[in-house]
Amino acid sequence: MLTTQLNTPTKKQVDFATLKPVIDFLNGYHPVSKANMRFLLQHTRMRVLKKGEMLQHAGTICTDMCYVMKGVLRGFIMDNGKEVTTWISNEGELVASIRSVFFQVPTKENVEALEDCILVELTYTDLLKVYDTYPEFNIVGRKILEFYYTYAEYRAFICRLSKASDRYEYFIEQNGHLINRIPLMYIASYLNMSIETLSRIRKKLRSKKQPGGQ
Amino acid sequence: MLTTQLNTPTKKQVDFATLKPVIDFLNGYHPVSKANMRFLLQHTRMRVLKKGEMLQHAGTICTDMCYVMKGVLRGFIMDNGKEVTTWISNEGELVASIRSVFFQVPTKENVEALEDCILVELTYTDLLKVYDTYPEFNIVGRKILEFYYTYAEYRAFICRLSKASDRYEYFIEQNGHLINRIPLMYIASYLNMSIETLSRIRKKLRSKKQPGGQ
Repeated sequence: MLTTQLNTPTKKQVDFATLKPVIDFLNGYHPVSKANMRFLLQHTRMRVLKKGEMLQHAGTICTDMCYVMKGVLRGFIMDNGKEVTTWISNEGELVASIRSVFFQVPTKENVEALEDCILVELTYTDLLKVYDTYPEFNIVGRKILEFYYTYAEYRAFICRLSKASDRYEYFIEQNGHLINRIPLMYIASYLNMSIETLSRIRKKLRSKKQPGGQ
Repeated sequence: MLTTQLNTPTKKQVDFATLKPVIDFLNGYHPVSKANMRFLLQHTRMRVLKKGEMLQHAGTICTDMCYVMKGVLRGFIMDNGKEVTTWISNEGELVASIRSVFFQVPTKENVEALEDCILVELTYTDLLKVYDTYPEFNIVGRKILEFYYTYAEYRAFICRLSKASDRYEYFIEQNGHLINRIPLMYIASYLNMSIETLSRIRKKLRSKKQPGGQ
Protein backbone atom coordinates (compact mmCIF):
# COMPACT_ATOMS: atom_id res chain seq x y z
CA MET A 1 0.00 0.00 0.00
CA LEU A 2 1.43 3.37 -0.98
CA THR A 3 0.81 5.52 2.10
CA THR A 4 3.47 8.19 1.57
CA GLN A 5 3.17 11.44 -0.34
CA LEU A 6 5.75 13.29 -2.37
CA ASN A 7 6.78 16.38 -0.42
CA THR A 8 8.89 19.24 -1.74
CA PRO A 9 12.33 18.14 -0.66
CA THR A 10 14.64 20.29 1.41
CA LYS A 11 17.64 21.15 -0.71
CA LYS A 12 20.76 22.98 0.43
CA GLN A 13 24.13 23.97 -0.98
CA VAL A 14 26.83 21.49 0.08
CA ASP A 15 29.96 22.62 1.99
CA PHE A 16 33.30 20.84 1.72
CA ALA A 17 32.95 19.00 5.06
CA THR A 18 29.62 17.55 3.89
CA LEU A 19 31.02 16.57 0.51
CA LYS A 20 34.13 14.92 2.05
CA PRO A 21 32.60 11.39 2.35
CA VAL A 22 31.46 11.61 -1.28
CA ILE A 23 34.95 12.64 -2.40
CA ASP A 24 36.45 9.80 -0.33
CA PHE A 25 33.95 7.43 -1.96
CA LEU A 26 34.95 8.62 -5.46
CA ASN A 27 38.70 8.66 -4.65
CA GLY A 28 38.31 5.03 -3.56
CA TYR A 29 37.70 4.22 -7.25
CA HIS A 30 40.15 6.68 -8.87
CA PRO A 31 41.72 9.99 -7.73
CA VAL A 32 39.51 13.01 -8.37
CA SER A 33 41.35 16.25 -9.30
CA LYS A 34 40.93 19.44 -7.25
CA ALA A 35 39.22 21.25 -10.14
CA ASN A 36 36.81 18.32 -10.46
CA MET A 37 36.11 18.48 -6.70
CA ARG A 38 35.38 22.22 -6.96
CA PHE A 39 32.89 21.52 -9.75
CA LEU A 40 31.15 18.90 -7.59
CA LEU A 41 31.08 21.31 -4.64
CA GLN A 42 29.38 23.93 -6.81
CA HIS A 43 26.86 21.57 -8.40
CA THR A 44 25.84 19.05 -5.74
CA ARG A 45 22.92 19.72 -3.40
CA MET A 46 22.02 18.23 -0.06
CA ARG A 47 18.56 16.72 0.15
CA VAL A 48 16.75 15.79 3.35
CA LEU A 49 13.95 13.22 3.36
CA LYS A 50 11.81 12.29 6.33
CA LYS A 51 11.08 8.62 7.01
CA GLY A 52 8.32 7.52 4.63
CA GLU A 53 8.93 10.36 2.12
CA MET A 54 9.32 9.47 -1.54
CA LEU A 55 12.46 10.26 -3.52
CA GLN A 56 10.94 9.03 -6.78
CA HIS A 57 7.53 8.01 -8.09
CA ALA A 58 6.94 5.50 -10.90
CA GLY A 59 6.01 7.25 -14.15
CA THR A 60 8.34 10.21 -13.58
CA ILE A 61 11.80 10.74 -15.07
CA CYS A 62 14.68 10.40 -12.63
CA THR A 63 16.99 13.42 -13.01
CA ASP A 64 19.52 12.91 -10.20
CA MET A 65 22.21 10.58 -8.95
CA CYS A 66 22.15 10.49 -5.14
CA TYR A 67 24.81 9.50 -2.63
CA VAL A 68 23.34 8.31 0.69
CA MET A 69 25.02 10.20 3.57
CA LYS A 70 22.59 8.89 6.17
CA GLY A 71 19.58 6.58 6.20
CA VAL A 72 18.12 3.63 4.33
CA LEU A 73 15.98 3.69 1.17
CA ARG A 74 14.19 1.06 -0.84
CA GLY A 75 13.15 0.79 -4.46
CA PHE A 76 9.85 -0.90 -5.27
CA ILE A 77 7.64 -1.63 -8.25
CA MET A 78 3.88 -2.20 -8.34
CA ASP A 79 3.05 -5.70 -9.56
CA ASN A 80 -0.68 -6.34 -10.00
CA GLY A 81 -1.54 -3.88 -7.24
CA LYS A 82 1.12 -5.18 -4.84
CA GLU A 83 4.37 -3.47 -3.83
CA VAL A 84 7.48 -5.52 -4.61
CA THR A 85 10.72 -4.27 -3.05
CA THR A 86 13.48 -4.50 -5.66
CA TRP A 87 16.49 -3.07 -3.79
CA ILE A 88 17.54 -1.66 -0.44
CA SER A 89 20.40 0.86 -0.08
CA ASN A 90 22.06 2.65 2.82
CA GLU A 91 24.93 4.96 3.78
CA GLY A 92 27.86 5.07 1.37
CA GLU A 93 25.83 3.86 -1.61
CA LEU A 94 24.53 5.52 -4.75
CA VAL A 95 20.80 5.59 -5.42
CA ALA A 96 18.97 6.36 -8.67
CA SER A 97 16.44 4.80 -11.00
CA ILE A 98 19.19 3.78 -13.35
CA ARG A 99 17.39 3.12 -16.63
CA SER A 100 15.40 6.32 -16.17
CA VAL A 101 18.40 8.51 -15.37
CA PHE A 102 20.66 7.12 -18.12
CA PHE A 103 18.06 7.15 -20.88
CA GLN A 104 15.75 9.88 -19.55
CA VAL A 105 12.66 7.70 -19.80
CA PRO A 106 9.92 7.34 -17.16
CA THR A 107 10.88 4.93 -14.40
CA LYS A 108 8.79 1.94 -13.28
CA GLU A 109 10.31 2.31 -9.84
CA ASN A 110 9.27 4.11 -6.67
CA VAL A 111 11.97 5.08 -4.14
CA GLU A 112 11.05 5.57 -0.49
CA ALA A 113 13.05 6.66 2.57
CA LEU A 114 12.79 3.93 5.25
CA GLU A 115 14.48 6.26 7.78
CA ASP A 116 15.17 10.00 7.92
CA CYS A 117 17.71 10.39 5.12
CA ILE A 118 20.40 12.85 4.04
CA LEU A 119 21.42 12.59 0.40
CA VAL A 120 23.95 14.46 -1.72
CA GLU A 121 22.60 14.76 -5.24
CA LEU A 122 23.94 15.71 -8.64
CA THR A 123 21.73 16.12 -11.69
CA TYR A 124 22.44 13.79 -14.59
CA THR A 125 22.92 16.89 -16.77
CA ASP A 126 25.71 18.03 -14.43
CA LEU A 127 27.15 14.52 -14.27
CA LEU A 128 27.46 14.56 -18.08
CA LYS A 129 29.21 17.95 -17.77
CA VAL A 130 31.67 16.38 -15.30
CA TYR A 131 32.40 13.58 -17.79
CA ASP A 132 32.95 16.13 -20.58
CA THR A 133 34.99 18.65 -18.61
CA TYR A 134 37.10 16.19 -16.59
CA PRO A 135 37.58 13.17 -18.89
CA GLU A 136 39.45 11.26 -16.16
CA PHE A 137 36.14 11.17 -14.27
CA ASN A 138 35.10 8.55 -16.84
CA ILE A 139 37.55 6.21 -15.05
CA VAL A 140 35.67 6.83 -11.78
CA GLY A 141 32.33 6.33 -13.54
CA ARG A 142 33.48 3.19 -15.32
CA LYS A 143 34.77 1.60 -12.09
CA ILE A 144 31.66 2.52 -10.10
CA LEU A 145 29.49 1.04 -12.86
CA GLU A 146 31.53 -2.18 -12.84
CA PHE A 147 30.79 -2.48 -9.13
CA TYR A 148 27.10 -1.61 -9.37
CA TYR A 149 26.60 -3.80 -12.40
CA THR A 150 27.79 -6.83 -10.45
CA TYR A 151 25.37 -5.82 -7.69
CA ALA A 152 22.46 -5.72 -10.16
CA GLU A 153 23.54 -9.16 -11.39
CA TYR A 154 23.56 -10.34 -7.78
CA ARG A 155 19.98 -9.10 -7.28
CA ALA A 156 18.92 -10.94 -10.45
CA PHE A 157 20.77 -14.01 -9.13
CA ILE A 158 19.21 -14.21 -5.66
CA CYS A 159 15.65 -13.80 -6.92
CA ARG A 160 16.28 -16.87 -9.13
CA LEU A 161 17.01 -19.19 -6.21
CA SER A 162 14.13 -21.57 -5.54
CA LYS A 163 14.77 -22.13 -1.81
CA ALA A 164 13.64 -19.24 0.42
CA SER A 165 16.37 -20.06 2.96
CA ASP A 166 19.07 -19.77 0.24
CA ARG A 167 17.75 -16.32 -0.71
CA TYR A 168 17.79 -15.22 2.94
CA GLU A 169 21.34 -16.49 3.47
CA TYR A 170 22.60 -14.53 0.46
CA PHE A 171 20.78 -11.46 1.74
CA ILE A 172 22.38 -11.78 5.18
CA GLU A 173 25.83 -12.19 3.57
CA GLN A 174 25.37 -8.87 1.72
CA ASN A 175 23.00 -6.90 3.97
CA GLY A 176 23.24 -8.52 7.40
CA HIS A 177 24.21 -5.18 8.99
CA LEU A 178 20.82 -3.74 7.94
CA ILE A 179 18.61 -6.45 9.38
CA ASN A 180 17.41 -4.38 12.37
CA ARG A 181 16.83 -1.23 10.32
CA ILE A 182 14.44 -2.61 7.71
CA PRO A 183 10.84 -3.67 8.49
CA LEU A 184 10.56 -7.43 7.93
CA MET A 185 7.74 -6.94 5.41
CA TYR A 186 10.19 -5.22 3.02
CA ILE A 187 12.87 -7.86 3.48
CA ALA A 188 10.26 -10.57 2.83
CA SER A 189 9.08 -8.73 -0.29
CA TYR A 190 12.69 -8.23 -1.51
CA LEU A 191 13.31 -11.95 -1.06
CA ASN A 192 9.98 -12.96 -2.64
CA MET A 193 8.61 -14.81 0.37
CA SER A 194 5.83 -14.30 2.90
CA ILE A 195 6.58 -12.71 6.29
CA GLU A 196 5.63 -16.05 7.87
CA THR A 197 8.28 -17.88 5.83
CA LEU A 198 10.88 -15.22 6.66
CA SER A 199 10.07 -15.44 10.38
CA ARG A 200 10.33 -19.25 10.29
CA ILE A 201 13.74 -19.11 8.56
CA ARG A 202 15.04 -16.52 11.04
CA LYS A 203 13.80 -18.55 14.01
CA LYS A 204 15.46 -21.69 12.65
CA LEU A 205 18.78 -19.86 12.09
CA ARG A 206 18.65 -18.35 15.61
CA SER A 207 18.08 -21.74 17.21
CA LYS A 208 21.03 -23.14 15.22
CA LYS A 209 23.31 -20.44 16.63
CA GLN A 210 22.28 -20.99 20.25
CA PRO A 211 24.20 -23.56 22.33
CA GLY A 212 22.32 -26.81 22.02
CA GLY A 213 20.69 -25.57 18.79
CA GLN A 214 20.73 -27.96 15.83
CA MET B 1 21.15 -31.73 -16.87
CA LEU B 2 24.65 -30.71 -17.91
CA THR B 3 25.29 -32.76 -21.02
CA THR B 4 27.99 -30.69 -22.71
CA GLN B 5 31.73 -30.95 -22.21
CA LEU B 6 34.36 -28.23 -22.23
CA ASN B 7 36.44 -28.62 -25.38
CA THR B 8 39.65 -26.81 -26.15
CA PRO B 9 38.37 -23.81 -28.05
CA THR B 10 39.55 -22.89 -31.49
CA LYS B 11 41.30 -19.54 -31.26
CA LYS B 12 42.60 -17.50 -34.18
CA GLN B 13 44.21 -14.12 -34.74
CA VAL B 14 41.63 -11.54 -35.82
CA ASP B 15 41.98 -9.63 -39.11
CA PHE B 16 40.60 -6.13 -39.62
CA ALA B 17 37.53 -7.28 -41.59
CA THR B 18 36.57 -9.60 -38.72
CA LEU B 19 37.12 -6.89 -36.14
CA LYS B 20 35.10 -4.31 -38.09
CA PRO B 21 31.69 -5.10 -36.44
CA VAL B 22 33.35 -4.87 -33.02
CA ILE B 23 34.88 -1.48 -33.89
CA ASP B 24 31.50 -0.29 -35.22
CA PHE B 25 29.90 -1.51 -31.96
CA LEU B 26 32.46 0.42 -29.87
CA ASN B 27 32.32 3.53 -32.10
CA GLY B 28 28.55 3.52 -31.54
CA TYR B 29 29.29 4.46 -27.93
CA HIS B 30 32.29 6.78 -28.45
CA PRO B 31 34.89 7.13 -31.26
CA VAL B 32 37.83 4.74 -30.90
CA SER B 33 41.24 6.11 -32.02
CA LYS B 34 43.28 4.34 -34.72
CA ALA B 35 46.05 3.47 -32.24
CA ASN B 36 43.43 1.98 -29.94
CA MET B 37 42.00 -0.05 -32.86
CA ARG B 38 45.50 -1.36 -33.69
CA PHE B 39 45.92 -2.48 -30.07
CA LEU B 40 42.58 -4.32 -30.23
CA LEU B 41 43.56 -5.93 -33.54
CA GLN B 42 46.78 -7.22 -31.96
CA HIS B 43 45.18 -8.45 -28.74
CA THR B 44 41.75 -9.86 -29.64
CA ARG B 45 41.30 -13.49 -30.65
CA MET B 46 38.53 -15.23 -32.56
CA ARG B 47 36.93 -18.17 -30.77
CA VAL B 48 34.71 -20.77 -32.38
CA LEU B 49 32.26 -22.82 -30.31
CA LYS B 50 30.12 -25.67 -31.57
CA LYS B 51 26.47 -25.82 -30.53
CA GLY B 52 26.35 -27.26 -27.01
CA GLU B 53 29.98 -26.37 -26.18
CA MET B 54 30.69 -24.52 -22.95
CA LEU B 55 32.35 -21.11 -22.88
CA GLN B 56 32.52 -21.06 -19.09
CA HIS B 57 32.00 -23.49 -16.22
CA ALA B 58 30.85 -22.52 -12.70
CA GLY B 59 33.74 -22.52 -10.24
CA THR B 60 36.30 -21.22 -12.75
CA ILE B 61 37.50 -17.63 -13.10
CA CYS B 62 36.30 -15.80 -16.21
CA THR B 63 39.27 -14.18 -17.92
CA ASP B 64 37.75 -12.78 -21.12
CA MET B 65 35.22 -10.32 -22.42
CA CYS B 66 33.57 -11.73 -25.57
CA TYR B 67 31.73 -10.02 -28.40
CA VAL B 68 29.24 -12.32 -30.15
CA MET B 69 29.84 -12.21 -33.94
CA LYS B 70 27.49 -15.10 -34.65
CA GLY B 71 25.25 -17.37 -32.59
CA VAL B 72 23.28 -17.46 -29.37
CA LEU B 73 24.56 -18.28 -25.89
CA ARG B 74 22.93 -18.66 -22.51
CA GLY B 75 24.13 -18.27 -18.95
CA PHE B 76 22.81 -20.64 -16.31
CA ILE B 77 23.29 -21.44 -12.65
CA MET B 78 22.67 -24.70 -10.82
CA ASP B 79 19.95 -24.32 -8.19
CA ASN B 80 19.42 -27.42 -6.07
CA GLY B 81 20.47 -29.70 -8.90
CA LYS B 82 18.41 -27.90 -11.55
CA GLU B 83 19.66 -25.65 -14.34
CA VAL B 84 18.24 -22.11 -14.22
CA THR B 85 18.86 -19.97 -17.32
CA THR B 86 19.83 -16.45 -16.16
CA TRP B 87 20.48 -14.70 -19.48
CA ILE B 88 20.41 -15.22 -23.24
CA SER B 89 22.65 -13.23 -25.63
CA ASN B 90 23.15 -13.12 -29.36
CA GLU B 91 24.96 -11.32 -32.20
CA GLY B 92 26.19 -7.81 -31.41
CA GLU B 93 26.23 -8.34 -27.66
CA LEU B 94 28.99 -8.73 -25.09
CA VAL B 95 29.18 -11.89 -23.03
CA ALA B 96 31.13 -12.54 -19.83
CA SER B 97 30.59 -13.69 -16.27
CA ILE B 98 30.72 -10.13 -15.06
CA ARG B 99 31.40 -10.47 -11.34
CA SER B 100 34.06 -13.06 -12.06
CA VAL B 101 35.82 -11.06 -14.76
CA PHE B 102 35.78 -7.74 -12.88
CA PHE B 103 36.85 -9.11 -9.50
CA GLN B 104 38.70 -12.23 -10.66
CA VAL B 105 36.72 -14.52 -8.40
CA PRO B 106 35.21 -17.92 -9.36
CA THR B 107 31.91 -17.58 -11.20
CA LYS B 108 28.65 -19.28 -10.19
CA GLU B 109 27.62 -19.20 -13.83
CA ASN B 110 27.92 -21.63 -16.73
CA VAL B 111 27.86 -20.29 -20.28
CA GLU B 112 26.76 -22.55 -23.15
CA ALA B 113 26.57 -22.05 -26.92
CA LEU B 114 22.99 -22.69 -28.07
CA GLU B 115 24.12 -22.54 -31.72
CA ASP B 116 27.51 -22.72 -33.47
CA CYS B 117 29.10 -19.45 -32.31
CA ILE B 118 31.88 -17.11 -33.38
CA LEU B 119 33.19 -14.80 -30.66
CA VAL B 120 35.86 -12.12 -30.60
CA GLU B 121 37.50 -12.13 -27.20
CA LEU B 122 39.85 -9.87 -25.26
CA THR B 123 41.37 -10.88 -21.95
CA TYR B 124 40.47 -8.70 -18.96
CA THR B 125 44.21 -8.10 -18.44
CA ASP B 126 44.38 -6.65 -21.96
CA LEU B 127 41.17 -4.68 -21.42
CA LEU B 128 42.79 -3.03 -18.38
CA LYS B 129 45.83 -2.23 -20.59
CA VAL B 130 43.47 -0.56 -23.09
CA TYR B 131 41.97 1.57 -20.28
CA ASP B 132 45.46 2.56 -19.09
CA THR B 133 47.01 3.20 -22.49
CA TYR B 134 44.02 4.89 -24.16
CA PRO B 135 42.22 6.78 -21.35
CA GLU B 136 39.42 7.86 -23.72
CA PHE B 137 38.45 4.18 -23.91
CA ASN B 138 37.09 4.69 -20.38
CA ILE B 139 34.31 6.72 -22.04
CA VAL B 140 33.46 3.72 -24.24
CA GLY B 141 33.62 1.41 -21.20
CA ARG B 142 31.52 3.74 -19.07
CA LYS B 143 28.80 4.06 -21.72
CA ILE B 144 28.71 0.30 -22.45
CA LEU B 145 28.42 -0.37 -18.71
CA GLU B 146 25.55 2.12 -18.41
CA PHE B 147 23.72 0.17 -21.10
CA TYR B 148 24.47 -3.29 -19.71
CA TYR B 149 23.71 -2.21 -16.16
CA THR B 150 20.19 -1.23 -17.18
CA TYR B 151 19.89 -4.64 -18.88
CA ALA B 152 20.90 -6.43 -15.65
CA GLU B 153 18.30 -4.31 -13.81
CA TYR B 154 15.74 -5.35 -16.42
CA ARG B 155 16.54 -9.04 -15.83
CA ALA B 156 16.14 -8.50 -12.09
CA PHE B 157 12.87 -6.68 -12.84
CA ILE B 158 11.19 -9.32 -15.03
CA CYS B 159 11.97 -12.17 -12.64
CA ARG B 160 10.09 -10.20 -9.95
CA LEU B 161 6.80 -10.14 -11.85
CA SER B 162 4.27 -12.52 -10.37
CA LYS B 163 2.24 -13.18 -13.55
CA ALA B 164 3.92 -15.59 -15.98
CA SER B 165 2.21 -13.87 -18.95
CA ASP B 166 3.70 -10.47 -17.88
CA ARG B 167 7.19 -12.02 -17.78
CA TYR B 168 6.67 -13.52 -21.26
CA GLU B 169 5.42 -10.22 -22.70
CA TYR B 170 8.51 -8.37 -21.40
CA PHE B 171 10.70 -11.11 -22.85
CA ILE B 172 9.05 -10.82 -26.26
CA GLU B 173 9.48 -7.02 -26.18
CA GLN B 174 13.24 -7.43 -25.64
CA ASN B 175 14.02 -10.79 -27.27
CA GLY B 176 11.14 -11.48 -29.65
CA HIS B 177 13.55 -11.84 -32.59
CA LEU B 178 15.19 -14.84 -30.86
CA ILE B 179 12.05 -16.83 -30.16
CA ASN B 180 12.67 -19.40 -32.90
CA ARG B 181 16.35 -19.82 -32.11
CA ILE B 182 16.08 -20.79 -28.44
CA PRO B 183 14.67 -24.13 -27.24
CA LEU B 184 11.46 -23.46 -25.29
CA MET B 185 12.85 -25.21 -22.20
CA TYR B 186 15.48 -22.46 -21.83
CA ILE B 187 12.98 -19.64 -22.36
CA ALA B 188 10.69 -21.26 -19.76
CA SER B 189 13.60 -21.57 -17.33
CA TYR B 190 14.69 -17.94 -17.97
CA LEU B 191 11.13 -16.80 -17.26
CA ASN B 192 10.76 -19.06 -14.22
CA MET B 193 7.78 -21.02 -15.51
CA SER B 194 7.11 -24.58 -16.66
CA ILE B 195 7.20 -25.45 -20.37
CA GLU B 196 3.48 -26.23 -20.08
CA THR B 197 2.73 -22.69 -18.80
CA LEU B 198 4.91 -21.15 -21.53
CA SER B 199 3.13 -23.21 -24.23
CA ARG B 200 -0.26 -22.19 -22.87
CA ILE B 201 0.68 -18.48 -22.89
CA ARG B 202 2.06 -18.71 -26.42
CA LYS B 203 -1.05 -20.53 -27.66
CA LYS B 204 -3.28 -17.89 -26.07
CA LEU B 205 -1.30 -15.04 -27.64
CA ARG B 206 -1.37 -16.72 -31.06
CA SER B 207 -5.15 -17.17 -30.91
CA LYS B 208 -5.52 -13.47 -29.96
CA LYS B 209 -3.57 -12.46 -33.08
CA GLN B 210 -5.60 -14.60 -35.47
CA PRO B 211 -8.77 -13.17 -37.01
CA GLY B 212 -11.63 -14.18 -34.76
CA GLY B 213 -9.23 -14.71 -31.86
CA GLN B 214 -10.18 -13.24 -28.50
